[in-house]
Amino acid sequence: MNTWKVLFRQWVLAAAFALGAASSASAGSGGQMVRLAKLVIDEPQLAAYRSLLVEEIEASMRLEPGVRTLYAVSEKNRPTHITILEIYADKAAYEKHIRTPHFLKYKTGTAHMVKSLELIETVPLIEDLKIK
Amino acid sequence: MNTWKVLFRQWVLAAAFALGAASSASAGSGGQMVRLAKLVIDEPQLAAYRSLLVEEIEASMRLEPGVRTLYAVSEKNRPTHITILEIYADKAAYEKHIRTPHFLKYKTGTAHMVKSLELIETVPLIEDLKIK
Repeated sequence: MNTWKVLFRQWVLAAAFALGAASSASAGSGGQMVRLAKLVIDEPQLAAYRSLLVEEIEASMRLEPGVRTLYAVSEKNRPTHITILEIYADKAAYEKHIRTPHFLKYKTGTAHMVKSLELIETVPLIEDLKIK
Repeated sequence: MNTWKVLFRQWVLAAAFALGAASSASAGSGGQMVRLAKLVIDEPQLAAYRSLLVEEIEASMRLEPGVRTLYAVSEKNRPTHITILEIYADKAAYEKHIRTPHFLKYKTGTAHMVKSLELIETVPLIEDLKIK
């Protein structure tokens, strides 16, 4: 009987931990999810990659209210080095985004062009800042 | 006489080069100047730094039409690592910005807090993209 008590206590702790982890993962700052994606593209395929990325960003901005921005820049001195500031309304908007046809087309279409991808979770300093 | 001819030709070439350099420096993409600033802040001074940066960004966005955004994020796993996406209407807007009282207050007030600063000139993939 004591074993059940211990198991129950462990279950309660595990459930509490899972709930805590889930809420902190989606929380960030007021629910928004803000990320920097840093990519290095295979040089001979750069033009093709850029074209697919532009198409994906334009579709996401047009069709998904939860995609607040996907602002992409390439470095002047290293055009194959691309950084994207990704802002989603919340974790759910992000989860929805990565299941859209336009994202999946981009992801599979560019898989062989991307030499490296680093995703950095961030917190915005001023959450509601815009681009004028 | 031949010497003057050579000197004149050199002067014309130098002037043309200077003009070309000036226009390519301000050109980028349609005149906009887009940059990533990557900073590492001294940990014990992070709160003070953030407060000065917020003040500077809010003043710039309010007072300077040519400052399109100064979107700052800190990394979740390394809060001392800050990246700012800086968008200026053009080179002139940037030159004006770095002479404003609020920028100079920030720059001098945080000089001893910034452990490193890297400025990366970039070109936006989609120039007129906003944050919804």
